[in-house]
Amino acid sequence: MPSNDEMKAAMRAYVERLNAGDLDGIMALYADDATVEDPVGADVRRGAAEIRAFYDQAVASNAKLRIVGPQCGSAGGFAAMPIEVSVAPPGAPKMLIGAIETMRFNDAGKIVEMRAFWGNEDMTLSME
Amino acid sequence: MPSNDEMKAAMRAYVERLNAGDLDGIMALYADDATVEDPVGADVRRGAAEIRAFYDQAVASNAKLRIVGPQCGSAGGFAAMPIEVSVAPPGAPKMLIGAIETMRFNDAGKIVEMRAFWGNEDMTLSME
Repeated sequence: MPSNDEMKAAMRAYVERLNAGDLDGIMALYADDATVEDPVGADVRRGAAEIRAFYDQAVASNAKLRIVGPQCGSAGGFAAMPIEVSVAPPGAPKMLIGAIETMRFNDAGKIVEMRAFWGNEDMTLSME
Repeated sequence: MPSNDEMKAAMRAYVERLNAGDLDGIMALYADDATVEDPVGADVRRGAAEIRAFYDQAVASNAKLRIVGPQCGSAGGFAAMPIEVSVAPPGAPKMLIGAIETMRFNDAGKIVEMRAFWGNEDMTLSME
């Protein structure tokens, strides 16, 4: 099982790679049979093809992540972080989303589950 | 299903009641068959008796919670918040824990699952 420091480092790499539009780099962090639930309560994406399509759309929407508070580990296998997401699809106004992401990792240190907690009420128009 | 605003309000009430040592008030927020996993990865407490014993110990340790960033909703049934927990058991130094709590609610608006993400690395000695 990866250490809390290793999981937190993987989550920082996730943020950096998403912000750089590095799809291959993001997918390299995920296990092949991973799930992504973003937002929590919506349909779960399963497996590399569905997850890659999700991030392809995120990059096309200029999604940028920023960690806005302490990352948190667990007693094993999970880590979490509070983030601010900005999204600016071409031709649309820039929006900010306050979210909390939790991830579960397998023994190889790959993400097997990502869940992003946010609701429509957590989305605001950017003042920039 | 409770709205995101209702779930966030319940989580703020949870913080206030825990800080006031109001055990009955905390238990009134929980469903009878709820689970508490604090920290995530440790043993899960199940049902009112085990959960009340957990909060009894928290109150005895002078546990105080502070919400340190935006609360987050979901697409349904879940909410999350970043918190700082201070604990000061009698005769022991005061410690601070950076944590993220997620909660799932039932249709009656009661908490059915609480999970607190934090690891030993997220605990520091208070400078107060």
